[in-house]
Formats: sequence, C-alpha cells, structure tokens
Amino acid sequence: MTYHPDHNVEIMTDCHNICLQTVSHCLDKGGDHAQTEHIILMLDCAEICQSAANFMLRNSELHARVCTICAEVCDRCAKDCERLAAGDDMMQQCAQICRRCAETCREMSRQTGRPRHASAA
Amino acid sequence: MTYHPDHNVEIMTDCHNICLQTVSHCLDKGGDHAQTEHIILMLDCAEICQSAANFMLRNSELHARVCTICAEVCDRCAKDCERLAAGDDMMQQCAQICRRCAETCREMSRQTGRPRHASAA
Amino acid sequence: MTYHPDHNVEIMTDCHNICLQTVSHCLDKGGDHAQTEHIILMLDCAEICQSAANFMLRNSELHARVCTICAEVCDRCAKDCERLAAGDDMMQQCAQICRRCAETCREMSRQTGRPRHASAA
Amino acid sequence: MTYHPDHNVEIMTDCHNICLQTVSHCLDKGGDHAQTEHIILMLDCAEICQSAANFMLRNSELHARVCTICAEVCDRCAKDCERLAAGDDMMQQCAQICRRCAETCREMSRQTGRPRHASAA
Repeated sequence: MTYHPDHNVEIMTDCHNICLQTVSHCLDKGGDHAQTEHIILMLDCAEICQSAANFMLRNSELHARVCTICAEVCDRCAKDCERLAAGDDMMQQCAQICRRCAETCREMSRQTGRPRHASAA
Repeated sequence: MTYHPDHNVEIMTDCHNICLQTVSHCLDKGGDHAQTEHIILMLDCAEICQSAANFMLRNSELHARVCTICAEVCDRCAKDCERLAAGDDMMQQCAQICRRCAETCREMSRQTGRPRHASAA
Repeated sequence: MTYHPDHNVEIMTDCHNICLQTVSHCLDKGGDHAQTEHIILMLDCAEICQSAANFMLRNSELHARVCTICAEVCDRCAKDCERLAAGDDMMQQCAQICRRCAETCREMSRQTGRPRHASAA
Repeated sequence: MTYHPDHNVEIMTDCHNICLQTVSHCLDKGGDHAQTEHIILMLDCAEICQSAANFMLRNSELHARVCTICAEVCDRCAKDCERLAAGDDMMQQCAQICRRCAETCREMSRQTGRPRHASAA
C-alpha cells in the first residue's frame, strides 16, 4: 500500500485538517479564540483548501483559479491565527501550515492548463 | 415552516444541484456527453457553487472573492453545456441555470464586506 | 427558468443552509449557544445533510444508508436547538427544519434501490 | 512544520483522494470503467470518506455512526474497483485503499463517545 498523494494536494489537505481541528480547540478556549469572525475564517479556510485540493485531484483546468482565492483565504487565516498564537502551540502550528499552503497555492495559481502533478500510480 | 433562504444562495444551490444531477444524465448518454473534460467541469461547477453558497451562509467577508471564481467556472460550464444542448432539455436547463448563477456571482463579486442578504428569521 | 429540485433534496438543502447560518448566530450570541458541543453538532448536521442531498442528486443506490445516519444527526441537532430556543426565533426555526429533515430522511432510509424522485427535466 | 494528522483521518483522506483521482482515470479509459454506476460509486466513496474524516477532525460524538456507513460504501467501491482491476495499476491501488479504509471505519464504528485520536499539537 504505497499511495503517495501529490505533495501540493497534501499541503492543502493538511491545511484543511488543521483548520477544522483548531475550530474545536478555539471553541474550547473561548474568549477571543471563539469570536465569530475567527471561527468563520477558519471554516472558510478549511473549505476552500478542500475545494482547491479537489480541483487538483480532478486534474481540472480551472485549478489555478481556485488556488488564487485559496492563497488569499490562507493568508488571512494565518494572520488571524498568529494574532492568537502567544503561548498556544496549536494556533502557532495552524498559522504555519496556513502560511505554507498560501505559498503553495500562489505557485499553483501561476500555472496554466491542467495541474502538473505526479500520477497516483 | 417558512424558511426562505437568501435568493442568491438559492441560485447557487440550484446550480450545484442541477450540475450534480446532470452528471448522471451525461454518463448515461455516453459519447461527447461523457467526455472527461465535460464531466470534470460539471463536478467543478457543482463544488464551487456549494462553496460560494457556504461562504454566503457563513456571512463571510471573503464571499465576494469566492463568487469571482464561481462566476468563471459557471460561465465555462454553461458554454460547455450549450455545446451539447441540441435536443437535450436537461443540458439546456443546466446551461441556463449556470448562466444565471454566473450573473449572480458577478454581482456578488463586486460587494465589499459581508454579504448583504436578508436574515433567515 | 423553471428548475424544481426534488422536494426531499430541497428539505435536506434547507437544513444544511439554516444550520450553517445559525452557527454564526450562535457564535454572536455566545454563552451556551457558543459551546463547543453545540457548534460542532450544527456543523455535523450541515455537512451530513449536504452529503445526503448529494447522494440523492447522484441518484445513488446507497442514498438510503446515508439518510439513516442523516436522520440521527438531524434529531440530535433539533433537540439541542430546542434546548436553546426560548425567545430565539432563529433557534426555533432551525429546530423545526431539523425535525422535518429527520422525518424525511427516515422515510428515505426505508427505500431500496435508487431514489424515487422526479427528474429535473 | 511537523503536522502529523491522526492516522485514521489520513486513511480516510487517502481514500477520498484516490477515488477522486481515479474518476478521471476511468472517464479517460471509457467502456466499463466509465459506466454511470461505477463513476457514481467512486464519487459517493470520495464524499463519504471526506465527511467521515471531517467528523473525526471535529472530534464529533457522532463520528462512529458516519464511519459505519463509510465502511459500507468503501466495501462496495473496493469490490467494484476489483472487478475492473485486471492489468490496471490505478484500479488495483484504489481497491486496496478502499479496503483499508473500510477496515479502519469498521473499527471506528465500534467506538462510543468522541474519537480517541492523538491531538494535533
């Protein structure tokens, strides 16, 4: 069983996963962590990362366009997590993974045509 | 039970729904209808419409950005459905609904801040 | 433009939509409304309703199985919304729509084979 | 950057990813690979694996119920991929990953309460 998903898809999936996990963490913490704007932004980020990954996985011609907006959402989410990251390992990690995903998506957004990713076989 | 979802959300949801239903129709028909590029485009359109609707429903500040790319995907999908619409009511309907959704999303993409939609109450 | 989605799909979509909208409402209210368990349950309900609707739209043989679990999640979400519904129109409406969706999904879960729904044409 | 998602979530995500990638592969191949029932089943499997992963990531009490149906869909999808796997590495790999995900989901479906998974921190 040696499935190695495309590295860029993996980065987007990681970002989706950590954002969704961190929502529960933030709700548990309460206060600024549980403000509507912050929770909504993390849900936005989780969703658009999933969509960007799915466009990649479908080998869609339009993946670069979705990656453009995904980079913007990830940048915003990273910034908002950094604001809350003092002494909070999970927020720090979430911010880092959002930054990495934003960079990857910016690179992908410059591609034309179908994603140039390794096949699954 | 008088739930009236926001009209713009409804347009995006209709587009998601018809695209997903039409995938089965196209696979059944085979030939040009079942070409990879066409099926993938309909799946892309269904997914991005759902995401755009969800950004609206979450009252997200970033909804206008997702609507920008949603309009592009819907335009492409409409064009591709029109190509296959001769004598095919379902493809004609799908094309029309994609066009309407593209227009709505273009309008939404010019908004700044949170969506201006009627509350659910 | 006369798209009439299947009535059962519409009920699931309404439930998805109101749950997602009500998340923002609950976060804004804070207190018991913003407890982790309640927010997570509404996100669970929104997601499984969407999946159940998508299985219906794809005309999937397995739709009845997804409807079984969807009914359970909707019942739980309705109960949790009722707990918070005193003097809160949005929670009352959300509870009602979850109840209706639970009933519809229970009916669907007894079907065998592909969904018996009106075509989109 | 040392994000290690929960191993069970990773198995579900792998299954989502390979199923979505394999849809394009099957459409390209045509014939039996592109039959409506097979494509729909792979889309069903991709979607329910994503939902099961998301219930896990949200640490939802109801994750075991979604895993129950996810196991059923994965078993069906594995069987249908095996039917088409002679001389087709991608179908073989997809079948294997669906089988592994079915097993994992069956184990998860026996849990009560919240998922017992390692934290992300």
